[in-house]
Amino acid sequence: MAELTDKARALIDAPNLAFLATVDPDGSPQVSPVWIDRDGDTIRVNTAEGRVKDRNMRRQPRVALSIADRDDLYTKVDIRGRVAAIVDEPEAREHINTLNRKYHDTDELYPERPGEQRVIFLIEPQRVS
Amino acid sequence: MAELTDKARALIDAPNLAFLATVDPDGSPQVSPVWIDRDGDTIRVNTAEGRVKDRNMRRQPRVALSIADRDDLYTKVDIRGRVAAIVDEPEAREHINTLNRKYHDTDELYPERPGEQRVIFLIEPQRVS
Repeated sequence: MAELTDKARALIDAPNLAFLATVDPDGSPQVSPVWIDRDGDTIRVNTAEGRVKDRNMRRQPRVALSIADRDDLYTKVDIRGRVAAIVDEPEAREHINTLNRKYHDTDELYPERPGEQRVIFLIEPQRVS
Repeated sequence: MAELTDKARALIDAPNLAFLATVDPDGSPQVSPVWIDRDGDTIRVNTAEGRVKDRNMRRQPRVALSIADRDDLYTKVDIRGRVAAIVDEPEAREHINTLNRKYHDTDELYPERPGEQRVIFLIEPQRVS
């Protein structure tokens, strides 16, 4: 596991979207914006079970993230990482509420959708550039 | 080749960064922000020869792009595509100057770096979501 840089920590701690890349079963890349935070230098991504990125990360734990400052898109960091662990509800439900507060600056809970199971992917950075 | 949606065209035509995902030789994903524009529904990405994304796209033409509105990050489009052609200088040098005007709103030329060869990747969208 690599250490995050101070710049990377600051970009993660602010409400910036991260663009998470995973790999499809046929080897094609997939990328979409996600909410993130961190526990020390472990990056936490929250998604719902069954989504493309959820299925991709369970099969292929190597991922990449690119994060740009929402107010200055030329301040950015690119990270290669590896899924180290997967955490289910109830912790994953608490975590999406934490992210909802971070990104929407509200105390409201993240909406619960019928049948949706939240899941946290804990990602260890391996290269930060 | 799929058609772009009107929303995708608008996101591409505004000076929004795109997050381009490619695949490394070992199968890991890689993602970084890029400048883009389009010719009809063909997306144009400009990079320099020898960079990771250049080498990756020459070897593995399947790519993905995610573009969010710089003023409203929840307006976004995710695109899967395929590299259809690669165009070298002098067209690629003219194109980076065009992108410099688009993103920096300036008539100045993009800086020429010694030995740097610009290259355009023409990407045909295959799925837009």
